[in-house]
Amino acid sequence: MKDLRLKLSPVTTLRNMTDGHRFALYKVGPVLCVTHGMGCPSISILLHELIKMMHYAKCQNPVFIRIGTCGGIGIEPGTVVISSEALDCKLNPCYEVIVQGKIVQHCSKLDQCLAQELRSLANPCEVDFEAIIGKTICADDFYEGQSRLDGAFCDYTSHSKIAYLLGLKDNGVVNFDMESTAFAALTKRANIRSAVVCVSVIDRIKGDQIRACPKSVSEWEKRPRELVSRYIRKVLLDEVKVKDVPARCVGGESVI
Amino acid sequence: MKDLRLKLSPVTTLRNMTDGHRFALYKVGPVLCVTHGMGCPSISILLHELIKMMHYAKCQNPVFIRIGTCGGIGIEPGTVVISSEALDCKLNPCYEVIVQGKIVQHCSKLDQCLAQELRSLANPCEVDFEAIIGKTICADDFYEGQSRLDGAFCDYTSHSKIAYLLGLKDNGVVNFDMESTAFAALTKRANIRSAVVCVSVIDRIKGDQIRACPKSVSEWEKRPRELVSRYIRKVLLDEVKVKDVPARCVGGESVI
Repeated sequence: MKDLRLKLSPVTTLRNMTDGHRFALYKVGPVLCVTHGMGCPSISILLHELIKMMHYAKCQNPVFIRIGTCGGIGIEPGTVVISSEALDCKLNPCYEVIVQGKIVQHCSKLDQCLAQELRSLANPCEVDFEAIIGKTICADDFYEGQSRLDGAFCDYTSHSKIAYLLGLKDNGVVNFDMESTAFAALTKRANIRSAVVCVSVIDRIKGDQIRACPKSVSEWEKRPRELVSRYIRKVLLDEVKVKDVPARCVGGESVI
Repeated sequence: MKDLRLKLSPVTTLRNMTDGHRFALYKVGPVLCVTHGMGCPSISILLHELIKMMHYAKCQNPVFIRIGTCGGIGIEPGTVVISSEALDCKLNPCYEVIVQGKIVQHCSKLDQCLAQELRSLANPCEVDFEAIIGKTICADDFYEGQSRLDGAFCDYTSHSKIAYLLGLKDNGVVNFDMESTAFAALTKRANIRSAVVCVSVIDRIKGDQIRACPKSVSEWEKRPRELVSRYIRKVLLDEVKVKDVPARCVGGESVI
């Protein structure tokens, strides 16, 4: 990714809010890198506008990949998680939007082939990190919504917290994030292949605060970028002889 | 506010993410100005951390005021709205969080005295804008959640959109935002007096796109800052002889 970064140039901010710094968008060749803020409402704004932009730009078969950090559930910090599906906090694979007062649900399952393809690029024999595929639970809140004990409010016990996290683990959930249901559902509705690739910086069963040293966390944070950069390189090399190179889109909470 | 801005200096970014630019916090005397991103999940992270910080800093009787822009419903663009209460999209004055798989509701009514006090500072005889008090509906989505026709997806008609907006108006709702329920509920739980002051940049009954010229919008955007600056000046002048000056906290989607 380092080489690519040198060539990055800011293109625009979306939602016509240049001064507001709501989103930052960079473009390098056919690859867009976009920030999406925190939470489903924020990323949903970006995706509506990005999907419209892709449509008007006549992009062919774009692929969207969200990258970021996450809280792991029973997995080693530093592990890269490629989401198989995004679950809401009731453990349903769906994203709920209230439209004109009525609840509307959209499927938030992700592209299984793309997940496998990304997973195949993280061969532990060649690289120094593990990548797994598993379910992601998408919370609308960082503290109580993820059963943390260290928010401003906490009306539950450490015992019920552990019981809840172990229950999630038993259901195949391996990590928390705050954007995956909206991301999966909106890209799926637009028939855009998509993936969520996040590195765990903590095992939530063992605690709520990141205990690893900043250097380790900084190294871990590079792993999703590294994995997705390999995917981009592979696709671009495969397509170098093809006339229409598809756009690739990589999103993160903040500028990568 | 201009004089204050000259003295602003960045203090820190929260959530220990200096490089991530998640939130920006500025302090001038006893006043903090903080960005909160878009949507309830984003502002809820900020508020948990800010409320903890206020607690550990032993701030006495802080007041939190959210400022920003909004979509008006049947009101003239440029009107400043001070929210009487924040409603969810089912028109309930509450903020829902899913905690350990169970829905928990918190009251999202706002401080009526503070709203009146702010309203009294916008005397139309002295200034060139109107400020009203009314209900705010807090959406989790900018496009479908606010019944816009210009998102990437739209499964409803312009007729049902207008019927929905007129129904909201009949219920006393005067504007949309995307953060007020979380803001009202979290500050209320912490016994912090709070207000939401947003300027309408569009009448949603008349359209979805901002049609006013950028200069007008830019002028309108200053109005909540102007009103809140008057409140801050008034409070500081009233308290200048008092030893312990309370902290005032002003939040916006982005740096003001």
